[in-house]
Amino acid sequence: MAGGIGSRFWPMSRSHKPKQFLDVLGTGKTLLQQTYERFAKICPPENILIVSNLDYRALILEQLPQILEQNVLCEPMRRNTAPCIAYANAKIALQNPNANIVVAPSDHLVLDQEKFVKDINLGLDFISNSDAILTLGITPSRPETGYGYIQVGKESPVGNGIRLVKTFTEKPNLDIAKVFVESGEFFWNSGMFLWNLQTIQNAFKDYLPEVSELFNKNTSAYNTPQEQAFIEATYSACPNISIDYGVMEHAKNVNVLCTEFGWSDLGTWGSLYENSDKNDDNNVLQGQRIITYDTQNTIVRSEGNKVAVVQGLEGYIVVDTNDVLLICKKDDEQQIKQFVNDVKIKFGASFE
Amino acid sequence: MAGGIGSRFWPMSRSHKPKQFLDVLGTGKTLLQQTYERFAKICPPENILIVSNLDYRALILEQLPQILEQNVLCEPMRRNTAPCIAYANAKIALQNPNANIVVAPSDHLVLDQEKFVKDINLGLDFISNSDAILTLGITPSRPETGYGYIQVGKESPVGNGIRLVKTFTEKPNLDIAKVFVESGEFFWNSGMFLWNLQTIQNAFKDYLPEVSELFNKNTSAYNTPQEQAFIEATYSACPNISIDYGVMEHAKNVNVLCTEFGWSDLGTWGSLYENSDKNDDNNVLQGQRIITYDTQNTIVRSEGNKVAVVQGLEGYIVVDTNDVLLICKKDDEQQIKQFVNDVKIKFGASFE
Repeated sequence: MAGGIGSRFWPMSRSHKPKQFLDVLGTGKTLLQQTYERFAKICPPENILIVSNLDYRALILEQLPQILEQNVLCEPMRRNTAPCIAYANAKIALQNPNANIVVAPSDHLVLDQEKFVKDINLGLDFISNSDAILTLGITPSRPETGYGYIQVGKESPVGNGIRLVKTFTEKPNLDIAKVFVESGEFFWNSGMFLWNLQTIQNAFKDYLPEVSELFNKNTSAYNTPQEQAFIEATYSACPNISIDYGVMEHAKNVNVLCTEFGWSDLGTWGSLYENSDKNDDNNVLQGQRIITYDTQNTIVRSEGNKVAVVQGLEGYIVVDTNDVLLICKKDDEQQIKQFVNDVKIKFGASFE
Repeated sequence: MAGGIGSRFWPMSRSHKPKQFLDVLGTGKTLLQQTYERFAKICPPENILIVSNLDYRALILEQLPQILEQNVLCEPMRRNTAPCIAYANAKIALQNPNANIVVAPSDHLVLDQEKFVKDINLGLDFISNSDAILTLGITPSRPETGYGYIQVGKESPVGNGIRLVKTFTEKPNLDIAKVFVESGEFFWNSGMFLWNLQTIQNAFKDYLPEVSELFNKNTSAYNTPQEQAFIEATYSACPNISIDYGVMEHAKNVNVLCTEFGWSDLGTWGSLYENSDKNDDNNVLQGQRIITYDTQNTIVRSEGNKVAVVQGLEGYIVVDTNDVLLICKKDDEQQIKQFVNDVKIKFGASFE
């Protein structure tokens, strides 16, 4: 899934080039490239499908020149994750009705690749032999309020850290998040899912029948010159709904593999700060020409040859792009979505 | 005098285009242009000489297309104010040995033009009829630590607010500045001087004889193609010394016109902040696309179409130029000189 706009990462992440297409960690590879490489260790590269917005097709082909063009599925508009998954399902069904599927966002961080590959293979084993839905739950290391949590129940008969899901929860406030973490019963919802095709197709039929019907109305259009027009019509008619809300919260037999592989959704500047190496002042400096004085616990990012001299900040985010400068307290970063909106209204959509 | 580099105004003021050549107040006119216009109300424009560094000749002619080219005196190197004044004196002497002279920096702010013109004319009356040196002292409105102060003695027989100078003082600390202001005996040193040519030539002969000799060694070179080469040699041999240190502190018969015409040397971001209109949050926003949230007592300047979103700052300076971003506490702005130096060492002289 590579269609998000990463607005909490503004102004680095922009609607014309969102987070997944950026090297946010300064590793030399974009998050999309990193995600692709992770899955290339799990399945043949020709089995990797990327579902994204039509606007990003060129970016994807540029960043992943090795990918088969027909494996880039282009959404004509944003309809959240359920239609995205339904589209991929329909395409996969034509290739292999017995496919086992991993669904993953393309803009997350995974530090321990080896553990990740092991866990995914474990999960694939599990779902290939059952009609269960499997999610990945991450052992929480702090009472993060930016994530949803999964409450787990008793262990599945299959063992291996796989447990039944009791509830999915929304992002909690700090007090609740603390209780969650202390209880040991709650895991971060990583937004990664595993299922076999039959299981997820059935779940769509049960819980999102209109979406299921729309995508299966004219399966002969797939892989022909008519596909894009069909998809355009399908998306126009399709509700805007997430897989969590549309399927997960209703489905029976949802399981969770509780694990830990150095995961972050890198959803915010704060999480990028947490996941980056810090210098002696606890600052994260991303840029070639940054100097700080009397500054701590701050992330500064500047582009190219631009010099940034930062004095007297404690706990801030400073992001200097070509056309936007953002200075914001780390603790107030949830306001960034509002900033983007205000800037868009005042100065134009190009700043989104 | 238009040869300074305004380093305390970095990164807006740069050695290739210092403060006097910038529209720091956003009025549509640079400080040099404003200064020129002020004096054009006092004397014929052809009597206005501009002494600056050779590097700025093109900038001056561009900003003041009406000026006579021969009225732009070009210093080949920085030697502080005494040589600058000596050079002008030598040139003026050839035109009019009885000239009355006003010496003024080109990068100061004067809000009340009418009062300024009146005061300068009053001062010119005074010095045209005496062999006295006259400085302009500004009634202090706050215990500013960024200015030198003039302690005044008894009133001059000529009256009109003109008094004898007791001492020139360096920039005081805050406690001393408070005592100065409360005493009523101390005035801000504006750095503006009035004298007739004979008086200042004599003062140079008395207190800076080597400078006087250097500039008068070969007066036949002036206004010929040999002038620049002669000046080059003269400056090379000349000490680096200010008029205050070289002449004012030694001269007898130094008087001060104590007045007030909305003056600021605009020497620092803090003084620009003080002298600018503030919005309801007490912020000074210089730029077309600045939005602030939870921000007070802060000055933000951004260039062109660049957007700046500033959240959670109290009492800061934020300056975003094409190649440098500066964020600094207003109270710590004296560190800016150090920043410039560090940036220059690390990233090159082009950032000075």
